[in-house]
Amino acid sequence: MRYRLYNIDLCAGSEDGASLPFIDDAALLTDDGVITYAGPASDAPPHDCREVCIDGRRRLAIPALANAHTHAAMTLLRGVGSDLNLNDWLTTAIFPAEERLSEDRCYAGAALGFLEMLRFGVSACADMYMFMGASARAAADTGMRACLARSVVGDDSGDGGRLAESIKLAEDWHGAENGRIRVMLAPHAEYTSTPKIIRAIRDAAVERGLGVHVHMSETMAEVEGCKARRNGLTPPAYFEAMGLFDAPTLAAHCVALTEDDIRVLAARGVAVCHDPVSNLKLASGVAPVPSLLRAGVKVCLGTDGAASNNTLNLWEETRLMSILHKGVSGDPSAISPAQTFNAATLTGMRAMGYNNVGLLKPGWRADIALIDRSGPHHQPLVDPAADLVYATQGSDVKLTMVDGIVRYDDGQYPGLDALKVYESAREASRAMLE
Amino acid sequence: MRYRLYNIDLCAGSEDGASLPFIDDAALLTDDGVITYAGPASDAPPHDCREVCIDGRRRLAIPALANAHTHAAMTLLRGVGSDLNLNDWLTTAIFPAEERLSEDRCYAGAALGFLEMLRFGVSACADMYMFMGASARAAADTGMRACLARSVVGDDSGDGGRLAESIKLAEDWHGAENGRIRVMLAPHAEYTSTPKIIRAIRDAAVERGLGVHVHMSETMAEVEGCKARRNGLTPPAYFEAMGLFDAPTLAAHCVALTEDDIRVLAARGVAVCHDPVSNLKLASGVAPVPSLLRAGVKVCLGTDGAASNNTLNLWEETRLMSILHKGVSGDPSAISPAQTFNAATLTGMRAMGYNNVGLLKPGWRADIALIDRSGPHHQPLVDPAADLVYATQGSDVKLTMVDGIVRYDDGQYPGLDALKVYESAREASRAMLE
Repeated sequence: MRYRLYNIDLCAGSEDGASLPFIDDAALLTDDGVITYAGPASDAPPHDCREVCIDGRRRLAIPALANAHTHAAMTLLRGVGSDLNLNDWLTTAIFPAEERLSEDRCYAGAALGFLEMLRFGVSACADMYMFMGASARAAADTGMRACLARSVVGDDSGDGGRLAESIKLAEDWHGAENGRIRVMLAPHAEYTSTPKIIRAIRDAAVERGLGVHVHMSETMAEVEGCKARRNGLTPPAYFEAMGLFDAPTLAAHCVALTEDDIRVLAARGVAVCHDPVSNLKLASGVAPVPSLLRAGVKVCLGTDGAASNNTLNLWEETRLMSILHKGVSGDPSAISPAQTFNAATLTGMRAMGYNNVGLLKPGWRADIALIDRSGPHHQPLVDPAADLVYATQGSDVKLTMVDGIVRYDDGQYPGLDALKVYESAREASRAMLE
Repeated sequence: MRYRLYNIDLCAGSEDGASLPFIDDAALLTDDGVITYAGPASDAPPHDCREVCIDGRRRLAIPALANAHTHAAMTLLRGVGSDLNLNDWLTTAIFPAEERLSEDRCYAGAALGFLEMLRFGVSACADMYMFMGASARAAADTGMRACLARSVVGDDSGDGGRLAESIKLAEDWHGAENGRIRVMLAPHAEYTSTPKIIRAIRDAAVERGLGVHVHMSETMAEVEGCKARRNGLTPPAYFEAMGLFDAPTLAAHCVALTEDDIRVLAARGVAVCHDPVSNLKLASGVAPVPSLLRAGVKVCLGTDGAASNNTLNLWEETRLMSILHKGVSGDPSAISPAQTFNAATLTGMRAMGYNNVGLLKPGWRADIALIDRSGPHHQPLVDPAADLVYATQGSDVKLTMVDGIVRYDDGQYPGLDALKVYESAREASRAMLE
């Protein structure tokens, strides 16, 4: 399938977080999921009759966003347990409902989560949860690019077969759907695991060439507990001592870090997923993102699950990353629009192992969002980079293409019955909360 | 004109910030701008042939939002001077452009700002700026409910006639358009004025029964400068000593407050407009909102101008107020959805002097927004209060009624050429920035 997006403006993305260039009056061509041209309309190759042409109506084409930490099926629990802290929220609201999860319910929740992300121009996510075969099927069916991980928890009695389940998931799905689905191994967190389990996950990941997705240093209480349990080591120091970072690692949250932690993350190339909405809502605090960026740590963005957010609209995180650290640090230049956009796109894709997604350049996979800038909140459009990061809303996305296929188009999901997905999710949610 | 909104759900608003009730399957009737019924559909009076009936398509009717601090015409400068602190942003980016303002340009910018707010379900704003006659005409033309104030600055040589201009504005416009337009007097801030000017404004406000709108304690630097200039007094203590709070006062920002300041604001009934996006973006800091609420201070919400935000979509402030103070205080119950929604609606209306706007109850003015909750980010709709505050986006607003007249309807502004407004704003912006 070949596409020609014409009559568009273009922001090809930020390669290094230093700049964010824009081209007015551009064209973008794809062939079998790969971008073959992205540049000025005047230099585009002539029309080819095999192309499907899409009139961009002067919308802005950007790389689709990457949500590098979520629990997609938790859309079923959107709004549950609001205004509780992380521990109370988990133990009184979330865990009891999750007892009633099933394969079918997870499918319903993950499918809803993927549709929500596609609607907001998010083409890819790192999804860590349970019943991940269901999530894989939902990703296959909705067209979402998904990096899946079965969350492994356990104690001295073992992990309840969860690592074996994770490995089976990788065997079944890693690289499936033309590479759109990937699998990582996921020790849930230091506090829900044992050294033996962490070591087994580390060995399995290294042996099989899989990445690792983990919750790390989400709250000060977690860090203090870790130090008490692990001979004074913080979670990053503990994981480093266990060799976990020998596998490419995506660490979510990282709110409570020491300077030493930051040095370890930079030295080991650990990608940090910043989840500012969730961290504020659960009162976990504010991650030291400017320090991480200064140290050269790869910072990407995530929504966390819908129960602690309450949406999967990564534009909220993008905007909040831009402004929160200015306000907290007192430095209005703390983070630039280009740095934020890089975190929301390219760095997130790379953290999930999608190494050719996140820029609109020939040879890269065609994950594209079209932004409508005709609304009043985009006028008079003086500075397109500031506009993109500070003024754009998720609902300004009018089309989302994943791997060269249009998956969201102005309220519709081509080939998919969204209302049926919503109804299934409502039924599953009711059953879990009754 | 009579309206019947049928086939709706209803949230009548929060009277005290304690609860936020919802009614499924409701109806709402208005007559000549006044709500005559708001309750269950089953109890609604029978259809009257003089009514215009609007099928709400099961959308949620809520009180329209109140943006209690903005500079509407600054939409012309949206995106200008991003990533600078308040002082640099004002002196290097904003003031030079503002030198080129004119009556016509202010009209264009204010009209754009009002359309943007109407689009996001904001029916009223407190607009402080220059050329406020233009803003008044734009409010009259667009249907916006607007509480206008000519910003007064000055030095020992006087105020350049600005207070006289403010009084003229009040004489021309206060109470106009069926009470939709109100006028306040506005000492810009402590640091841009003199005691003599503050005193003159105070006297004029008290004499004429007008309110006061002022920037106050926006940054720590402002507070330190004030203490150096005013015998150790903070801005609230200084204004209190000058008698300014003898007039009903709406104080914007209030980021850097002492415990004594908070006591003064509570005792004198000063309304505090919290502008969290602007305060973060300009690196001013985080206002002590939970302490203000505990002390009984009236807290409302504002966007500030588009140049420091960069939108006038008050849903961003609503969401951010809800989560920011949880994260900063470490208390996930710091602010409830009902408190936030109260700040975004009723308290803001009252702070502007609209004492019968902000609740959907018989006898109150019909300022109403209809929210579309059919999108994926609202599913499965377990907790409608959490959903309203944490998941709703400005673009979910499909209809905005101001004073009983539909001013925004699903992409259209009845009777108004929005594209012409945008084009005028683009021309004005270009002329100011060239």
